Amino acid sequence: MTRTVRFHELGGPDVLRLEEVPEPRAKAGEVLIHARAWGLNRADSLFRQGQYGVAPALPSGLGFEVAGVVAAVGEGVTDFHAGQAVSVVPGFDLLSYPMHGESVVAPANFVVAHPKELSFEQAASTWMQYITAYGGLVDLANTRPGDTVVISAASSSVGLAAIQIARREGAKTIALTRTSAKRQRLLDAGADAVVATTEEDVVARILELTDGRGARVLFDPVGGAALAGLISAAATGAFLVVYGVLDFTPATVSVLDLLLKRLTIRGFGVMELALDDPGRLAAAVDHVRKGITDGDLVPVIDQVFPLADFAEAHRRLESNGQVGKIVVSLSPDGPTAG
Amino acid sequence: MTRTVRFHELGGPDVLRLEEVPEPRAKAGEVLIHARAWGLNRADSLFRQGQYGVAPALPSGLGFEVAGVVAAVGEGVTDFHAGQAVSVVPGFDLLSYPMHGESVVAPANFVVAHPKELSFEQAASTWMQYITAYGGLVDLANTRPGDTVVISAASSSVGLAAIQIARREGAKTIALTRTSAKRQRLLDAGADAVVATTEEDVVARILELTDGRGARVLFDPVGGAALAGLISAAATGAFLVVYGVLDFTPATVSVLDLLLKRLTIRGFGVMELALDDPGRLAAAVDHVRKGITDGDLVPVIDQVFPLADFAEAHRRLESNGQVGKIVVSLSPDGPTAG
Repeated sequence: MTRTVRFHELGGPDVLRLEEVPEPRAKAGEVLIHARAWGLNRADSLFRQGQYGVAPALPSGLGFEVAGVVAAVGEGVTDFHAGQAVSVVPGFDLLSYPMHGESVVAPANFVVAHPKELSFEQAASTWMQYITAYGGLVDLANTRPGDTVVISAASSSVGLAAIQIARREGAKTIALTRTSAKRQRLLDAGADAVVATTEEDVVARILELTDGRGARVLFDPVGGAALAGLISAAATGAFLVVYGVLDFTPATVSVLDLLLKRLTIRGFGVMELALDDPGRLAAAVDHVRKGITDGDLVPVIDQVFPLADFAEAHRRLESNGQVGKIVVSLSPDGPTAG
Repeated sequence: MTRTVRFHELGGPDVLRLEEVPEPRAKAGEVLIHARAWGLNRADSLFRQGQYGVAPALPSGLGFEVAGVVAAVGEGVTDFHAGQAVSVVPGFDLLSYPMHGESVVAPANFVVAHPKELSFEQAASTWMQYITAYGGLVDLANTRPGDTVVISAASSSVGLAAIQIARREGAKTIALTRTSAKRQRLLDAGADAVVATTEEDVVARILELTDGRGARVLFDPVGGAALAGLISAAATGAFLVVYGVLDFTPATVSVLDLLLKRLTIRGFGVMELALDDPGRLAAAVDHVRKGITDGDLVPVIDQVFPLADFAEAHRRLESNGQVGKIVVSLSPDGPTAG
């Protein structure tokens, strides 16, 4: 037997249980991983509450991110061997492959041997955030030197990853955060400027910081009423990537601005990189791997919780107090090298 | 002396005057054209009313489209010679180069020797409509076989051009028009289906016509309140090009739809093809030229007005009764071969 996170009803962190289940087996094309660390995502929280794109089939597991050690490989899997340190990249189906368990199976196409620089905790914090930021900022918006990139919800794991990805492309970043509380930490994390959205005139500040031109790239997981402000703060030829929705108010869009600015607004989910063209995800993984090896990309971890406190980790996720990734460590002695 | 269209105040067709002005001269890099036909555009009407992106400097000329005969070339212009039949492609500055006069100067970079298949009236109807449709459907949205393309305001010159451009790329087209009055003419013009927007449930009809999938490309010059319906009728991975705004109501956008459909919304003006990368406009001109020579692209002309009735041509433009291009002929004997 092994233990896995499940929930039998939709709701807050309290609905989560660590339940005994039979040890899973790796079928053809799959890899069995003994988890050493889980990464948490906003999507885990939305999924648990029934607010994610796909509905859970109750009782349901969850979790997109894991790092651990290969325990076994299924038929036809030749790229991995038992004992190898691995983690998973986004693109597989959450309903079929929930990652937050002690022993989990993942499709081999989405398993990677992560760079040796990373601990298990860091590896569990890497792929979702950097591939999401790469997908939006590089694959879609073609961020390049001279660009200014506005990053909403900048203290989230993807927000911090976006700061690092944009800097690596030679762009300047403006980090949006609700209050001044995280200002210094965002500057320390590499943001060129920080705007506190509940304390400052966001549009005026972005225009001021860009000499009146506006931002060429905007990267937003919020949507809703604030989107109109991002459009007002966009430069001519701007690319606005919306990769999440936290405010379900319909967005109001000035079509005249859309035209005069030749604006592109693009809904993006990291899962699309695995669709249609396999080269797209491979390019993303390669880009992130190089960035880690070069030292440009260093996962920011907010807090590591022991397995016993995994529900507490979800509460931290929902506190909006974090800066960076929230991780659950399954190593009895805490953080470990990869 | 020569005559040119000017207006001394903003307003309807009545503010237009045909005024005597000195014969213009072609300066360096310019071509002097003796006009044989003018093409009218919705933008002419918006500009005359002060509702176009740039404001007229009164008294102002207007007009984006002309076909005629080269009368003289300025210093450094070697591609054209007196007596040659030419027309102009979009991308130059309207304030500096209004085209609706008997003798007009145009920047040589935007003058083309049009295909011999075209009369002057057809040549004056060609470039704006086909390059706009090409820019939105091919350059941006990458329309391809298997796509369904929804075309709003389909009886406009650009709408009809879009039907032909989309068909040439192997796509099916759904033409949107306000009432059933123009249904048969749109089918005759090549539309695979027609939806009357004030008589039918637009979203339901588009979904029905696409087996529930929605349209992969949508091409809209209206904006405003109707945009929400186009988003609802968009397929996963759809590309919505907005190339004009007639309804200034801010558009309401469901960010959840944007995400779930991985939708792209792009504001587009044909002038952008001439910016940044000169190859982009050249590719568009080449594409349209080939389409005309192949017989896939045949300009649909609504009505040709004699010069004396040029204000009447503007009234026809604003009647919304037209199907296709409205042209003013400057040849005393009416339509002529190019």
